[in-house]
Amino acid sequence: MSMLSELREGPSIVEGLLRSAGQVDRVAEAIRSRHIDLAVIAARGTSDHAAIYAQYILGARNGLLVAPAAPSLVSLYGAPPHLRHSVVLGISQSGKSPDVVSVLAESRRQGAMTVAITNDSSSELAAAAEYLIELEAGEERAVAATKTYLAEIAVVAMLSAALSGDRKSRDELAALPDAMSEALRTEAQVGPLAAEWAGESRCAVLARGFHYATAREWALKLKELAYVLADPYSAADFQHGPIALVGAGFPVLAIATSGPAFEGMVELLGRLHETKAKLLVLSDAADLDGLGSVVRIPAVPEWLSPLVAILPAQLFAYHLARARGLDTENPRNITKVTLTL
Amino acid sequence: MSMLSELREGPSIVEGLLRSAGQVDRVAEAIRSRHIDLAVIAARGTSDHAAIYAQYILGARNGLLVAPAAPSLVSLYGAPPHLRHSVVLGISQSGKSPDVVSVLAESRRQGAMTVAITNDSSSELAAAAEYLIELEAGEERAVAATKTYLAEIAVVAMLSAALSGDRKSRDELAALPDAMSEALRTEAQVGPLAAEWAGESRCAVLARGFHYATAREWALKLKELAYVLADPYSAADFQHGPIALVGAGFPVLAIATSGPAFEGMVELLGRLHETKAKLLVLSDAADLDGLGSVVRIPAVPEWLSPLVAILPAQLFAYHLARARGLDTENPRNITKVTLTL
Repeated sequence: MSMLSELREGPSIVEGLLRSAGQVDRVAEAIRSRHIDLAVIAARGTSDHAAIYAQYILGARNGLLVAPAAPSLVSLYGAPPHLRHSVVLGISQSGKSPDVVSVLAESRRQGAMTVAITNDSSSELAAAAEYLIELEAGEERAVAATKTYLAEIAVVAMLSAALSGDRKSRDELAALPDAMSEALRTEAQVGPLAAEWAGESRCAVLARGFHYATAREWALKLKELAYVLADPYSAADFQHGPIALVGAGFPVLAIATSGPAFEGMVELLGRLHETKAKLLVLSDAADLDGLGSVVRIPAVPEWLSPLVAILPAQLFAYHLARARGLDTENPRNITKVTLTL
Repeated sequence: MSMLSELREGPSIVEGLLRSAGQVDRVAEAIRSRHIDLAVIAARGTSDHAAIYAQYILGARNGLLVAPAAPSLVSLYGAPPHLRHSVVLGISQSGKSPDVVSVLAESRRQGAMTVAITNDSSSELAAAAEYLIELEAGEERAVAATKTYLAEIAVVAMLSAALSGDRKSRDELAALPDAMSEALRTEAQVGPLAAEWAGESRCAVLARGFHYATAREWALKLKELAYVLADPYSAADFQHGPIALVGAGFPVLAIATSGPAFEGMVELLGRLHETKAKLLVLSDAADLDGLGSVVRIPAVPEWLSPLVAILPAQLFAYHLARARGLDTENPRNITKVTLTL
């Protein structure tokens, strides 16, 4: 059961990262002193979802424009875009995937500021970058990443706080581990709900704004662990076509928490409820009960909510896999470290 | 049957666009004279896939770094990133979605170069931007976009050719409509294949590099028209987790054409074939026959292959919808123009 115990380490890992904020502060200081307002991120799989969180958080809170790197431009086509005015972040648990490493190496060659965010300080990625931020999550044995995703988005949140430099953000971060521990207690509700979903082989996962990353990562866990074809969508993009999928009984997971995206999410969920979709919603709001199954998560400032909401999502994927009789430690076809070119 | 006749207009629309290249040339000239090397694109649904094509093509061929806009940063959070050094492209068939319009308006306010790419020159999007590129595709009546996607990626390809300024690119573009017409003749093979897929409710759609956009758009057509939960993945990202989904009989669609991404695609397809996945591949290569059903498409330079490959993909989605007894003109839950905030 290493996955479940690793998942439960989330709050203490974030606590540890908050105590060693110096490595993040140095990166923020360098970004500020170089007047950089463009970030490029190279990442794959779970780490790519931390990149999406960064796109929204660093954009909305720090005015940074964040672009995904499309690693194949470097690794396959040998035609990297101009990167020298940007900070280039490589995010990888193992620090080993050659395509992510090649983006960092090329960026450094061009003279860009480079940062490796990884759980292995002796990895190729760490060596390729000028700056290193260690995830300090301890070894992750389960193939499906859980605690390292939390560590990655915690680092992004800390970077945003350090860039803004305001006291309020730091205080909000300090209160986070307690809220995360509380979120772990949803397991008593999430386990039985997951059992009710054991017969599903496909679903949509919807959110908007800061939680788009949560939707993407939740969907990936459902694919890796429970072999459910879970399709993540921004609530806006979903309405530009894919909503045609939804007939009576079509299963939809959603994250809807307080903030500017909430009203639109509730409107969409109401529309899906009318088509008799099967809904399960993670929310910090009290008034969604008519819409389907609601898992209440602790209310925290919206920008930090992805660190809280991912815990019941991971728990749901874990228990769904168990309910479907699958091996949560070693999903078929994949290994812990994936090397792509 | 307006969708099928619209789909078949593809080659003549591209021919028309190539004749009126002046509107694209003006935009390329302005990008060059302002020394811009960063493009931000706001788009939704099908148009967002034209944005992905732009990310790869303008990156690999023109050194432009391309970032998606995350419209909600402007429309919901009121916190736009710094855009003044970039060219901001809004791509929308209707030119009406408020979130896309708001990104262009904000970008222009910040002093960025702004370009509307739309099928409606009297739309809000056209009015919000400094430059206008008309898609000239004629009215699109079918709810699912086909010919306007082709027009959008044709405009992106023309922009790349104009930015590079080389004669060879223009010649390659000129030869494109014939290859597209040839690709339409795959319908005789694609129709019966689609009928064999009528019982599937989910699948993965895989490609890499320039065809990642094709995979995304193919998957969207399958959702909109055939109500099949089709999950598009870069072949690299697919191996970082989602490949756990694939057991015997799991249906996988793929695009694998000549170029740097080909070898990796064939390797992945071989691996999926070993797990007894059900494979259907669009390819310009002759030697894939052992891997599953192969639809041969005309060989064109790799950067233009997405304009050819999307035609059998659209035809497949259309015939699959018909085989499943669905209304291809009016999918449930969606309308032609979607307004999201």
